[in-house]
Amino acid sequence: MDYISDFLEFLSIPSVSALSKHKADVERAASWLARRMERAGVREVRILKTAGHPVVFGQVLSRSPHAPAVLIYGHYDTQPPDPLEEWNSPPFEPVVKEDRVYARGAADDKGGVYGAILATEDVVKAGGPPVNLKFLFEGEEEIGSPNLKDLLVKEKDLFACDLVVSVDGGMFTREIPSLTTGSRGLVAIQIDVKGPRTDVHSGGHGGAINNPVNALCQIVASMKDEDGRITVDGFYDNVRDISESERKSFAQVPFDEEEYRASVGVPALFGEPGYTVLERLWSRPTLDCSGIWGGFQGEGVKTIIPSKASCKITCRLVPDQEPDEIARILEAHVRRCAPRGVTVETTVFPGNSRPYVVPGDHPALPVLSRVLTKLYGRQPVEVRLGGTLPIARTFLDLLGSYLVFFATSSPDENVHSPNEFYRLDELDKLRRGLPELWSELAASHRT
Amino acid sequence: MDYISDFLEFLSIPSVSALSKHKADVERAASWLARRMERAGVREVRILKTAGHPVVFGQVLSRSPHAPAVLIYGHYDTQPPDPLEEWNSPPFEPVVKEDRVYARGAADDKGGVYGAILATEDVVKAGGPPVNLKFLFEGEEEIGSPNLKDLLVKEKDLFACDLVVSVDGGMFTREIPSLTTGSRGLVAIQIDVKGPRTDVHSGGHGGAINNPVNALCQIVASMKDEDGRITVDGFYDNVRDISESERKSFAQVPFDEEEYRASVGVPALFGEPGYTVLERLWSRPTLDCSGIWGGFQGEGVKTIIPSKASCKITCRLVPDQEPDEIARILEAHVRRCAPRGVTVETTVFPGNSRPYVVPGDHPALPVLSRVLTKLYGRQPVEVRLGGTLPIARTFLDLLGSYLVFFATSSPDENVHSPNEFYRLDELDKLRRGLPELWSELAASHRT
Repeated sequence: MDYISDFLEFLSIPSVSALSKHKADVERAASWLARRMERAGVREVRILKTAGHPVVFGQVLSRSPHAPAVLIYGHYDTQPPDPLEEWNSPPFEPVVKEDRVYARGAADDKGGVYGAILATEDVVKAGGPPVNLKFLFEGEEEIGSPNLKDLLVKEKDLFACDLVVSVDGGMFTREIPSLTTGSRGLVAIQIDVKGPRTDVHSGGHGGAINNPVNALCQIVASMKDEDGRITVDGFYDNVRDISESERKSFAQVPFDEEEYRASVGVPALFGEPGYTVLERLWSRPTLDCSGIWGGFQGEGVKTIIPSKASCKITCRLVPDQEPDEIARILEAHVRRCAPRGVTVETTVFPGNSRPYVVPGDHPALPVLSRVLTKLYGRQPVEVRLGGTLPIARTFLDLLGSYLVFFATSSPDENVHSPNEFYRLDELDKLRRGLPELWSELAASHRT
Repeated sequence: MDYISDFLEFLSIPSVSALSKHKADVERAASWLARRMERAGVREVRILKTAGHPVVFGQVLSRSPHAPAVLIYGHYDTQPPDPLEEWNSPPFEPVVKEDRVYARGAADDKGGVYGAILATEDVVKAGGPPVNLKFLFEGEEEIGSPNLKDLLVKEKDLFACDLVVSVDGGMFTREIPSLTTGSRGLVAIQIDVKGPRTDVHSGGHGGAINNPVNALCQIVASMKDEDGRITVDGFYDNVRDISESERKSFAQVPFDEEEYRASVGVPALFGEPGYTVLERLWSRPTLDCSGIWGGFQGEGVKTIIPSKASCKITCRLVPDQEPDEIARILEAHVRRCAPRGVTVETTVFPGNSRPYVVPGDHPALPVLSRVLTKLYGRQPVEVRLGGTLPIARTFLDLLGSYLVFFATSSPDENVHSPNEFYRLDELDKLRRGLPELWSELAASHRT
């Protein structure tokens, strides 16, 4: 099977975007990809330079003048392979065992990228695609796509499309297909509380001055009530209510609370009353302290009042919360409830993300649902990402196009961990599913 | 001046109790002291072994059969000298400059110990002391007197006395003499909050589980109100009210709040309403978080819900709070308000201290006051230690005797810091003051 040996060659290139020593490898992967796309019949293949690693572009136009443009998104860079000693075989010497290929990047996302090329190759051989296919394979996904925005601004026309289909991502489980219809946004601030100039003796000063740690705890405690509701004034103002159809759809997702609880290792699940766990994870904003520090952290007792204390607060946002506005609201809250006798400062971290949701009536959703049902033999469940998906937001903001996922990976494939693997039958799924999707999209576009 | 060269010899012995490499030096200092006491006319001088460094005992009995027994307390060990590079001359090569001797341990407490010996020598030459003088000079004060309690239990009769006079300590300022009439107690606990088994992604889990840092902040915040009052149930139950005479006496202490505020470097002083700063420092209990930690403390943002968070809480106690009881009260409070969805544990640290106050009507106080007035030309102010004074409590509990201070050091002498010094005229003050005190004590005992 020639297509397998090609895949193994692709996997053997250590295109680790985070490590400068692999810069030439990342470029080699881009070249390999470009050549393979050309061989598959993709036209106008170009390696687009960025301030970082390159983007591989290409397109195959449909013969129909009114066909929609579909941009296939994926990435050819990989996570670093460490810890090496936990791998059963070297991460860039792919090993096939039964139906699996073990290699760093196999599932994330070289399998998806390569599957899309195979699907395109089939379609070209069969007379050309029913949609205008465009390809954007980036080399910086694993480092946060720092240069993608600039490229999209610069090459807006080149990437113009009606829909973005990501081959990065995966299904809810290997058996249960899913439609991922949104992700949460992100905003993070640091709170710094300063008290005495230096740490001071708690006997000599305790009772006369405020303690920055106690003061910080009061600020943090003032942000949520004991049920997990966020009590910051205005925080929920622009939160879009969960619709009845979302509720119904989330409720259909097979989710065992007790199994989840045990897997995380907490004594009980916890969160905003009035919502199911999945509703809270997918459609409700959060406020979490991701780190706190101040004073003496060693063994035993050091009898001081610390000079300062700090914490980081991260909020996950949902439509229609704007990160900048939420940052202002958080800062105003901290200012308003800043304890006396200490100095309180806040800093907003750069790198906000806006929340993202594909509208429930987006025409691609029923199409995707039909194709997945045919491919998996059961209807997909609608899911969301509790985390952020900055690129989806970027495509929407810069190209005006929504992103949907068509990626057949399963969640057990050790993505970002040692012994990452990809199931070879997922290449077949993409080869069967993507052409089906393109046909259905073309058909639904005509109607 | 022979007595100066003797003093310099004493200071040149590096009796650093904390460092095992100085073990022989500590013993040498004890021997030196014992010989010098014998030369001064002290009888039955003995070097008492302990599990650690020895205690030097001695006594000179009065000719009067009804004379009270006064135990002179001091210590011959010193703090380590580091940082050495900040000393202007080697710490154990004493240098006299004008009226000062620079050396580690000069003010804390070899000056006091040596001054007491000089005073005794004078009194013995003049016909013997009017009281039964006993001496307890320990070698472990700087490491927390870990073996003193055992020795006092064992040698209870040897150290039996009516009053302990400490030559360790100091006056409020060089110009303003003071009576230190008490110190606060201490109890400390650690609070550990556990959430998910490991740090987890705040996108993947935010909203579904409780956050140990937020939960810990709620616990800490629940312990004090925004005015600084402690809100732990039962915490103030046994607190002895400040008496009118204490209030009056504290109010006479020259204390400039603005000067104090600026020296500590806080934007405003802070604490329990209804009390002056000195009342809060000396006669009100405190609750301070001396350290807190959990989650990510590095630069930037790490989007996690931490697995755990911890903090240390230290309380300063006043009569009649019992440390063990307060520990129980704190633990009960934490249990009661432990947030859901996390596991909360508390640990009480060993090394509690009970608060200590000399009763306002103790007959030694007016005597001390008269002697100090004569010595300094002005009435002493009554002060307290906001910190703890475990040995005072130990003497009271084991010998039934209160401890008062007669130490002429000033607070500017760099005690525990580089370039510690002692003013030579303080030796004279002790030589004049202590015999005066002993006479007055003998006289007041007779009446």
